[in-house]
Amino acid sequence: MAKPKKHIFICTQNRGPGHPRGSCNQNGCGAVLDEFMFEFQKRNLGEKFQLTMTGCIGPCGSGPSVLVYPEGVMYGKVTKEDVVAIIDEHLLGDVPVARLSVPAEIW
Amino acid sequence: MAKPKKHIFICTQNRGPGHPRGSCNQNGCGAVLDEFMFEFQKRNLGEKFQLTMTGCIGPCGSGPSVLVYPEGVMYGKVTKEDVVAIIDEHLLGDVPVARLSVPAEIW
Repeated sequence: MAKPKKHIFICTQNRGPGHPRGSCNQNGCGAVLDEFMFEFQKRNLGEKFQLTMTGCIGPCGSGPSVLVYPEGVMYGKVTKEDVVAIIDEHLLGDVPVARLSVPAEIW
Repeated sequence: MAKPKKHIFICTQNRGPGHPRGSCNQNGCGAVLDEFMFEFQKRNLGEKFQLTMTGCIGPCGSGPSVLVYPEGVMYGKVTKEDVVAIIDEHLLGDVPVARLSVPAEIW
């Protein structure tokens, strides 16, 4: 594909049960990824925007983590219900969703 | 960690032998990842820059692929020997390495 307008990185790191850092997988990133993929297919968003699964991107304690470049906006504790807002407001509207962004001390 | 100055995404996608798309793993991304991790540790680069492993980022045919944000520069056919140039010229010197970048029609 051509270089995307925005690139969405979804952490899918997994760690075993009881691991002290936890992981985005344990925190439910699977449903978030599924929802992004569903909306991308439904609205044909893949022509302009790219979705990529990643290993750890850092703030495990506030996962599921979703990171959008080129802005470098990190969303934390993302739920399936937040995905449409990130798409509508940030990807399509070009305004990051402040209420879902992690605090500056985390990222 | 704090938001990094640059974020380096290294594709570690794997596909089975004979798969028509191939994969960065089959093309030798493991040695590239190891070299980045080695240089990051040796030079303590993790304070300013972040390394993340990813699933597929697109141009499988020119893998191993390394993508640097916020610039959105995609490097292709990266070898272990190219890693120091990406670190010295792009991460530290702030000038992307044109000779290692994929053509505009790919990304």
